[in-house]
Amino acid sequence: MKAKIITSIPGPRSRKLLRAHKLVNGGWGAPHPFVHSHEGSGCYFKDIDGNTFLDFASQVASLPLGYNHPDVKEVVRQYARFSPVKYAGQDFLTKEHQALLEELIAIPPAGMNAAFLINSGAEATENAIKICMRKKKMAKYCVSFEGAFHGRTLGALSLTDTKRVHKEHYFSIPTKRLPFTDEAGQALLDLLEREVSLQEIACVIMEPIQGEGGYNFASKKMMKDIRLVTKQKRIPLIMDEVQSGLGRTGRWWAHQHFSIKPEVIAAAKALQVGATIANKQMFPSDVGAISSTWGGGHIIDMAVAVQIIKTIKRRKLLSRTSSMGKYLLKGLHDMSDDVKGVSNPRGLGLMTAVDLPSARVRNNVILEAAKRGLVVLGCGKQSIRFIPPYIIDRDEIDEGLHIFHDAVIYCSQSRFRHRGEICHFMGCGEHSS
Amino acid sequence: MKAKIITSIPGPRSRKLLRAHKLVNGGWGAPHPFVHSHEGSGCYFKDIDGNTFLDFASQVASLPLGYNHPDVKEVVRQYARFSPVKYAGQDFLTKEHQALLEELIAIPPAGMNAAFLINSGAEATENAIKICMRKKKMAKYCVSFEGAFHGRTLGALSLTDTKRVHKEHYFSIPTKRLPFTDEAGQALLDLLEREVSLQEIACVIMEPIQGEGGYNFASKKMMKDIRLVTKQKRIPLIMDEVQSGLGRTGRWWAHQHFSIKPEVIAAAKALQVGATIANKQMFPSDVGAISSTWGGGHIIDMAVAVQIIKTIKRRKLLSRTSSMGKYLLKGLHDMSDDVKGVSNPRGLGLMTAVDLPSARVRNNVILEAAKRGLVVLGCGKQSIRFIPPYIIDRDEIDEGLHIFHDAVIYCSQSRFRHRGEICHFMGCGEHSS
Repeated sequence: MKAKIITSIPGPRSRKLLRAHKLVNGGWGAPHPFVHSHEGSGCYFKDIDGNTFLDFASQVASLPLGYNHPDVKEVVRQYARFSPVKYAGQDFLTKEHQALLEELIAIPPAGMNAAFLINSGAEATENAIKICMRKKKMAKYCVSFEGAFHGRTLGALSLTDTKRVHKEHYFSIPTKRLPFTDEAGQALLDLLEREVSLQEIACVIMEPIQGEGGYNFASKKMMKDIRLVTKQKRIPLIMDEVQSGLGRTGRWWAHQHFSIKPEVIAAAKALQVGATIANKQMFPSDVGAISSTWGGGHIIDMAVAVQIIKTIKRRKLLSRTSSMGKYLLKGLHDMSDDVKGVSNPRGLGLMTAVDLPSARVRNNVILEAAKRGLVVLGCGKQSIRFIPPYIIDRDEIDEGLHIFHDAVIYCSQSRFRHRGEICHFMGCGEHSS
Repeated sequence: MKAKIITSIPGPRSRKLLRAHKLVNGGWGAPHPFVHSHEGSGCYFKDIDGNTFLDFASQVASLPLGYNHPDVKEVVRQYARFSPVKYAGQDFLTKEHQALLEELIAIPPAGMNAAFLINSGAEATENAIKICMRKKKMAKYCVSFEGAFHGRTLGALSLTDTKRVHKEHYFSIPTKRLPFTDEAGQALLDLLEREVSLQEIACVIMEPIQGEGGYNFASKKMMKDIRLVTKQKRIPLIMDEVQSGLGRTGRWWAHQHFSIKPEVIAAAKALQVGATIANKQMFPSDVGAISSTWGGGHIIDMAVAVQIIKTIKRRKLLSRTSSMGKYLLKGLHDMSDDVKGVSNPRGLGLMTAVDLPSARVRNNVILEAAKRGLVVLGCGKQSIRFIPPYIIDRDEIDEGLHIFHDAVIYCSQSRFRHRGEICHFMGCGEHSS
């Protein structure tokens, strides 16, 4: 397959639907300028206008095996004669729920022998916080990091420190913030010395690689120091692996690259359901302390999640994300050497990013790439992330880099301006501040 | 079909899986003593031991059309050749997302012309609160009711006032509480006079029928007064219809029975996805003010949700929930006349409940009913709720009432004690306080 654009972007059918959508969607977030059909294969999908796109966004890291993977199709086929059910999974058990828990605790790190399934990444974070609070009964604060993104529910959002629009006027739970730098460990010690007592801290929560905040990679020193201080002070450390987890970086969890072990992991996205993972002793023992009607979730989500873990193992996709990630990163390094404006290539496995000169150029490039058949996502102030499915190959990486390269060159022209209606559908650089 | 129990309960296979589950489930909430298979039809399902149960719990109101409804199967069949995708619905549009929004705003009340799809009932509530906060920039408090349950994420949980175990040691956002009585309107006026200024209140949130709190039905006076005061004072009123909505009470939303209209509706459960519903003007206009990776959710959930709304219309299930609800309630009234210990029958459509003499008896009856092939759920201190699928008929209601009747009689014996392992799987009256 190859990316192939046969209409203007958005195509006429997509445009019509996007227009209608803007009128009725309360959460209008400036969607990308096409509408998905269900046709697709591997890293490619078709929109409803018949255009074929190469997907370096993977539904924001939620599609590790790409579109219509045969292993996943086989699982779904087995369910075809039943209508799917949203089980009230904490009240009514299914085999899929138990199977997923068993798969989850069988992957590293050892000692994480229990999990709580929940509906989203935000809810995985919320429950990670909750179980820490239950342990530390005098707690008054959570500690998170500058630039962090942990989700949109009010608890998770309190720990979040990205765009102003995410938080303005919303209530917060009390949060202390550390710099996402080598000074983080010392800053935590300072915090304990000057501002808050040890009992007052429920947990420290961090993303090993900040996602929405801009693909900022924790340094080894930072991670080591934070783990050292939290361990010494017996503060539970939560790793938010919602975006970075389940193999994206070439290991099951990104924090494994740092040879540390947290007390709690929050997962979602590639996992298809949210999950709070920890040693059983970290979880409250009183019945009903954490729960959720759909905790456990959709029967097909759980069955697919089990298959994703199995496929990652069977097809050795960890080593694939690792090697393909290196190849992709090398391509980005080459591009940053050759192309003015492309800078700061960085990555771990297939979680890679570059910076562009400004938010304006970045947003333009996202749209221009889409017009040329490549889907990428922004993050941080002026970064672009590249998070293709784990099954991508070198030719597909080359194709994506090629389109991206051309889009950057095109948008870097001094008089570049987008034309047409595309700007109404996404917050492009021409019309957003 | 008829309920038919052919093994001890839990059956040997279920028992094995439930035991294993307790070891690895961080969220152990004392599940019911069987494990679902996917076999089932209408109001009946089979467990993995081959027992057939009559389901008066509907996956906590998440299964309005019962198991394997032909309309739902037909929808799923259409998706069989694609692997299902968790679309990042606020970034990437699908036809199903738009179709569901359009179906949702086409049902009453008029003027609710936009919706935001999200992952759970808790997230629907969180976003209902968030959009009100964005409107009332000086807000410091939300106002909810005694006995309320709005979800488990920290924002929604702050508004919740049910069991202590749900909230203990968790952070809260500032909340004022009104009595769930005829005095509520006056209490809100008093609150405004004595404690907080008008600008400080973000919203008033209520369930027209408190679910988890005990199937407490708002009185007409209470509802009328609260609407009057909130309207006069321009405080947004949120109706939490997560459990009571989408036809369960014989109207699309339970608050319609009271001839009032809120500013915001929170929905989930029967809808298969969470949704915050309001007039477009209630939603923040700035891009990204509310969002969620999976907001919009699973492609099959959205397609099924569309079908559920269509089927409710086509098969006139609102009038059916209404008439079957009356029949069920009459049966409960008759039982409360005849059977000592069964009291306070109450209901609206197929959202009905009775009280039993104590939590202990109630919990025993739930287990005893399961042993006899009927699944019911508790709520509040000592209530049992009856929330069968909308497609239930009179014979099935009779069958369920008959089993329930016998279970109550059996558990009311003065020397009654459960025997066997069942008590390890659910917090039954013999072993929980």
